[in-house]
Amino acid sequence: MRMVDLIEKKQHGLALTKDEIYYMVNGFTDGTVPDYQMSAMAMAIYFKDMSDVERSYLTMAMVESGDQIDLSAINGVKVDKHSTGGVGDTTTLVLASMVASLGVPVAKMSGRGLGHTGGTLDKLEAIPGFKIEIGMDDFIKLVNENQIAVVGQTGNLTPADKKIYALRDVTSTVQSLPLIASSIMSKKIASGADAIVLDVKVGDGAFMKTPEAAEELAHAMVRIGKQVDRQVMAVISDMNQPLGVAVGNTLEVIEAIETLKGEGPEDLMELCLTLGSQMVVLAGKAQTIEEARQMLQENIDNGKALAKFQQFVQNQGGNPEVVNDYSLMPQASIQQMVNAPKSGVVTGFDCENIGIAAMWLGAGRATKDSEIDLGVGLKILKKIGDTVEAGEPLVEVYSSKEDINNVEKLLLESIHIGEEAVINPLIHKIITE
Amino acid sequence: MRMVDLIEKKQHGLALTKDEIYYMVNGFTDGTVPDYQMSAMAMAIYFKDMSDVERSYLTMAMVESGDQIDLSAINGVKVDKHSTGGVGDTTTLVLASMVASLGVPVAKMSGRGLGHTGGTLDKLEAIPGFKIEIGMDDFIKLVNENQIAVVGQTGNLTPADKKIYALRDVTSTVQSLPLIASSIMSKKIASGADAIVLDVKVGDGAFMKTPEAAEELAHAMVRIGKQVDRQVMAVISDMNQPLGVAVGNTLEVIEAIETLKGEGPEDLMELCLTLGSQMVVLAGKAQTIEEARQMLQENIDNGKALAKFQQFVQNQGGNPEVVNDYSLMPQASIQQMVNAPKSGVVTGFDCENIGIAAMWLGAGRATKDSEIDLGVGLKILKKIGDTVEAGEPLVEVYSSKEDINNVEKLLLESIHIGEEAVINPLIHKIITE
Repeated sequence: MRMVDLIEKKQHGLALTKDEIYYMVNGFTDGTVPDYQMSAMAMAIYFKDMSDVERSYLTMAMVESGDQIDLSAINGVKVDKHSTGGVGDTTTLVLASMVASLGVPVAKMSGRGLGHTGGTLDKLEAIPGFKIEIGMDDFIKLVNENQIAVVGQTGNLTPADKKIYALRDVTSTVQSLPLIASSIMSKKIASGADAIVLDVKVGDGAFMKTPEAAEELAHAMVRIGKQVDRQVMAVISDMNQPLGVAVGNTLEVIEAIETLKGEGPEDLMELCLTLGSQMVVLAGKAQTIEEARQMLQENIDNGKALAKFQQFVQNQGGNPEVVNDYSLMPQASIQQMVNAPKSGVVTGFDCENIGIAAMWLGAGRATKDSEIDLGVGLKILKKIGDTVEAGEPLVEVYSSKEDINNVEKLLLESIHIGEEAVINPLIHKIITE
Repeated sequence: MRMVDLIEKKQHGLALTKDEIYYMVNGFTDGTVPDYQMSAMAMAIYFKDMSDVERSYLTMAMVESGDQIDLSAINGVKVDKHSTGGVGDTTTLVLASMVASLGVPVAKMSGRGLGHTGGTLDKLEAIPGFKIEIGMDDFIKLVNENQIAVVGQTGNLTPADKKIYALRDVTSTVQSLPLIASSIMSKKIASGADAIVLDVKVGDGAFMKTPEAAEELAHAMVRIGKQVDRQVMAVISDMNQPLGVAVGNTLEVIEAIETLKGEGPEDLMELCLTLGSQMVVLAGKAQTIEEARQMLQENIDNGKALAKFQQFVQNQGGNPEVVNDYSLMPQASIQQMVNAPKSGVVTGFDCENIGIAAMWLGAGRATKDSEIDLGVGLKILKKIGDTVEAGEPLVEVYSSKEDINNVEKLLLESIHIGEEAVINPLIHKIITE
């Protein structure tokens, strides 16, 4: 087999076979297929696409390129959730506690990641004493006993995906639907998920800018799941504005706790109920979405979801009192308001810039070696459709230094005030096939 | 400027600017643009094409990536000819002598090259004493005094093209019209041509399989010429069968001499008159193609074209007696006939295989280090449309060894005998814009 022939085949829109896709993925991973051939192939795929079957072979070839987490010792259906990213997305901590409180096993591998705010691991480290380094045996034991544990990613998962992604990033082939879909699916499958709930964000602040593109990605991933015997459902959710209110690490943990108490932002609660009810159904703990949603709402109302979070924190060495005393977590020394420059209605956000403003404060990592300042961040006080008076606070900035001129400038540029707002529904669509 | 942004631009079908194209070509040549980005770009160009203006920038960026031959000290319009390749193409030696005999300066840089038979330089070395290593000053003096000289390629011409071509070869991007056109044009322009006559071959034995594809390539190159102030004309000529009769080095020199005597194969003569009359017009030595053709025919008839060849050979140290005594050149020790296995009409050739058969005999180089056996080769005795009787000779094989079983087998597979033949015109079209 020669890679140049595979490129030519794809160039002419023909489907690659399983053997050909494994040859390509394994060859690129071990270095026998050079990067210049892989990038030409990625560009050919960008233009000529891949069939559902090809996508599933690509997914599994990437899964099999490295270690695979074996969660078979955990009882029940292991349901994982994946979000395609956005700004101020605090769903993971809320969801995990909610569904675990209904007996759904949540065995979460999480990363630190680059970006506007820290990954789930960074957020958890805002809780004093919390440990994410647990051995695999203890991790499985914790999940079997308490239905919930979060651990730092170990092992060499999907090295092929990492290498292909790095190449796509510099060859303008990130925006290729079959490559995006198989990249996401390979990571989830390698992490041991039996079933997956996808939160595909759509809007200005998301990877997918239009509902059509988001739906296409959702369908693609659900169909890969079907090919490789994993149940997958997807929610298309709006990301034309930050989700919830908080952007930052301590701030997002507080927001998650508030939501578990039933006192969080409405949009965050709604998304967690939507995603959570799918997870509960996929795990076989409810027959219908409606039933699952009711069960979740009950466990919010009766405090069981919050109690599950407390138990989870305690199990991993954290101080469970954090749910009652937020001051136990790292705090920003200075709070300042950014006020509306004029009166009107909030019409939109440049979400990307909101995230960058948080990163400038120190909430996220610009490079792998950046230190995160857990206490800093933003609270977005107005949402699309809210009226504001000139001088009224738009954003509360939590910072460690007095001078926030650049952050303020970026925020004011990124929050649009006009006369009339278009308000999108939070949940655009549910995709199940 | 970032290469990834240029790839994205092209991916979306947008035109690259002059600066962007030079950045890409210079960066790839000096190594600051890595091959994986260049191959992604080549694939994006394959799918999204380039405008005439982009193609001309690409051509000139490749020209300027290395040395450029300065022929300004040669009087008159320097007209070069380029053929897109085929089997048994002996036009260069005939053409050069014909047009030089009318005062058109022929300052030919030539290579050895890989392939079925040697390059023009190898063929000339079949003439005893012939030297192709001439200094630049002597080369120019020879052309000014005698209108003709051929020299081995010196200097580092179009290194960008060489590097891009090598990458295209392994990434399935050879077949990209803008890349083919600018590659050919860059080499001719770097060699110092003021005007260029292109012989674009079409047919089973050519790079371009259909008249449409060949015409498109011809238009592309003529238009690049217009953009960069070089006059360019193109002839689309048939390559569904070997041109002329001879395939091999000594054999092709003999065929060239015979043609200059007016006794060569009809198709070779016709193509040389067609290409030659364009060269004469572009050089300003005749007003019309018809006039130029008549002048060339006269110089064949009156012996001036042959005399020019003799003078050229003598000037470069070769024995001019070769035109009267072909035995002065290297000869094959053995001649054998390959006979028709059945009666019928010759309906077609696998030209590529005819060339490979010649290479197996030793007429060409399989690798850069192969030694060429100048005396060996083939004479194709039947052309498309000729009737043959079973047992009648089809090919005369000139070899240095008795056993030619594999060559005979390949030849018989490659010459098709049937009931009715489709005879294409030799000259499909002339392209001038």
